[in-house]
Amino acid sequence: MKIEEIDLFYVALPAITRTADGTQDSLVVRIRTDNGLVGWGECDASPLVSMTAYVMPMSHSNIINISEALIGETLDSPEDVVRLRTKAGEYGLDVQQLDHAVAGADIAMWDALGKHLGEPVWKLLGQSDSYKKLPYASVLFGDDPAETKVIAESIIEREFRAAKFGWGPMGRGSLDDDVALVQAARDGLGSGAKLMVDAGVIWGDDVDAAYERAEKFAEIGVVWLEEPLRTEEVGAYRALSDRVRENDIDIGIAGGEGADFYRSADDMMTNAGLDFVQIDVGRIGGITEAKRVADRARELGIQYVNHTFKSHLSVAASIHVFAGFEEFDLIEYPAGNSPLVLGLTEPTGVFRDPDGLVRASDASGLGVQVNLDAIRKYQRMVKIEIDGEVLFESREP
Amino acid sequence: MKIEEIDLFYVALPAITRTADGTQDSLVVRIRTDNGLVGWGECDASPLVSMTAYVMPMSHSNIINISEALIGETLDSPEDVVRLRTKAGEYGLDVQQLDHAVAGADIAMWDALGKHLGEPVWKLLGQSDSYKKLPYASVLFGDDPAETKVIAESIIEREFRAAKFGWGPMGRGSLDDDVALVQAARDGLGSGAKLMVDAGVIWGDDVDAAYERAEKFAEIGVVWLEEPLRTEEVGAYRALSDRVRENDIDIGIAGGEGADFYRSADDMMTNAGLDFVQIDVGRIGGITEAKRVADRARELGIQYVNHTFKSHLSVAASIHVFAGFEEFDLIEYPAGNSPLVLGLTEPTGVFRDPDGLVRASDASGLGVQVNLDAIRKYQRMVKIEIDGEVLFESREP
Repeated sequence: MKIEEIDLFYVALPAITRTADGTQDSLVVRIRTDNGLVGWGECDASPLVSMTAYVMPMSHSNIINISEALIGETLDSPEDVVRLRTKAGEYGLDVQQLDHAVAGADIAMWDALGKHLGEPVWKLLGQSDSYKKLPYASVLFGDDPAETKVIAESIIEREFRAAKFGWGPMGRGSLDDDVALVQAARDGLGSGAKLMVDAGVIWGDDVDAAYERAEKFAEIGVVWLEEPLRTEEVGAYRALSDRVRENDIDIGIAGGEGADFYRSADDMMTNAGLDFVQIDVGRIGGITEAKRVADRARELGIQYVNHTFKSHLSVAASIHVFAGFEEFDLIEYPAGNSPLVLGLTEPTGVFRDPDGLVRASDASGLGVQVNLDAIRKYQRMVKIEIDGEVLFESREP
Repeated sequence: MKIEEIDLFYVALPAITRTADGTQDSLVVRIRTDNGLVGWGECDASPLVSMTAYVMPMSHSNIINISEALIGETLDSPEDVVRLRTKAGEYGLDVQQLDHAVAGADIAMWDALGKHLGEPVWKLLGQSDSYKKLPYASVLFGDDPAETKVIAESIIEREFRAAKFGWGPMGRGSLDDDVALVQAARDGLGSGAKLMVDAGVIWGDDVDAAYERAEKFAEIGVVWLEEPLRTEEVGAYRALSDRVRENDIDIGIAGGEGADFYRSADDMMTNAGLDFVQIDVGRIGGITEAKRVADRARELGIQYVNHTFKSHLSVAASIHVFAGFEEFDLIEYPAGNSPLVLGLTEPTGVFRDPDGLVRASDASGLGVQVNLDAIRKYQRMVKIEIDGEVLFESREP
């Protein structure tokens, strides 16, 4: 089949708050083919900036937009997806936003191809099984320990067996403040649930500050300390990881969501001493590139985990990437209350079974459907003109 | 003083050709302050994609646009520029295009600050001298050896003492074809001029193909082989560099223009075995970040070279970064015939002295002025609406 059209849908809640909550808007990408199939993908990125990477005028041979790279192309096999992802990368070689933007198209190509061939994406990726994973509820810290404890209790009420708390006041006060926040999360969850902490790059390059927290959080039974440092501080990460290991502190160091392309993730895995590498399929350029990271993580003995703070379209895209890796047994699972998390694919989604586990679907493609009414309800209509001519205009789904 | 306004000018030639010529369009950034000063900067990036990073709606606390980070802020010292560059990076943490886009504002802040304090930018960066550099004419290969030779001869007629040829047919034919191209460049230049070759990432991860060329080009007296491999193939780069050294092949390996942020350049320097690191100030996030790379290159004993394929506004921004490093004695100097190369800053520019050398100006700021008539002549007027409301509209300069 051939790629006939790429549609871009910018959806957003009516009011966007200044919190680290990525579920307030989204760029959803639809690929339509000449045999009437559709594939869907989602970017974890600025919708407007990413849209322009699909429609920007050519600057020279290394700045050509994604639509021009893909429309009219043949899509019949996994090799075609890889070839087209590579082509889009070459056309957009000098577009920094390329990876964030093309992620949506890459995911949509895998989805459409799966529907075309009647296979789930995980199988098209060469995996022989789809293993169950334990979803951890991914939420923001409350504004103080009391609020954090209430959030943790609500997670247990919703029958999650693992949770990650992040951002909010973490690292903005003293060591004691941070410990109190994490202790409150633990108190709310009880001793039986896994607890992870996301520091949101708050300590920059300060290894001592991060190490002190690692030591204390380990005592509270935290599985990993995520993004204690800025992504680019690879040397500082290494110093931190080495020190945690040398002192037998029982906590993992996690990071990688800031990796916008394969080499950045490989750099983190090879040089930062990570125990867990967290890859956002909607940032790193899609399923194709995320799968390369998962394969490399297995080689290096690092646990691959998805980073996902978008809708269930992204949760689905994420789990197909590492469905066949039995040892990668945790999956980030957005658990906030934005109507975009569940609403975008309603009534489909990646739902928990009676044991509280999830697995990549055996249905064709990604196994979730996008709800066009949700697109209509939340769509923001963008119009871009250059010299009075319309370059791009949003359309109804 | 305070930053009062940021103006974005998308300029382009009437027709853009599909060659690797980055001088066909540009995004020019002007910062205006409350005491009536202006600073100018330029991005080496897709103009439209980068513009949106200045005006995009907020997605969450890590996707906030550059204008919001900078407008209203105090700009009185070099520390302020670094603080504001950092702030823009934090506001745009999850915007991949951030570095390409903020480069223009960073350069414009240094320019405005220099004018405010009556100092050249190189001095504000803590450098005590502005050394002369040998400019190499940076051009594309002709379509065949004969055309390449004519281009080389014209470079000598224009009294350049060094030239770099790149892209075009390089690597698209056989080894012999490539050698013939380089030999033609050498024949046209004569034996006295320095010659560099830019392969434009053509051999991907194929170390053997790159090594064969390195060996042959060394015999033709090529100073460096640039970007033989894709930026992300750091392991392949290392294998190539090691092999070139082990076999005493007299050619340097150069790369780095694809480094969009500091760590990416550091990764290339630390792990790819480069002899020359080539940094584009208009991509890596401006003068602030490029200077960090220059400092690190000195530590590692690697030669820092600018990558510049834009106007003399970018040439000026580039040379201030490493003006004070006597050992970094080469500067890339766009020598194609696009009217944007010299026209954008006409009649100012970074011009050669009677010895054919250039140096960073001692005038305040960058030492070049932007020609508003050139902006008017080449400006493309962009209008972006969301839900019928104007988010951004280009203004006359």
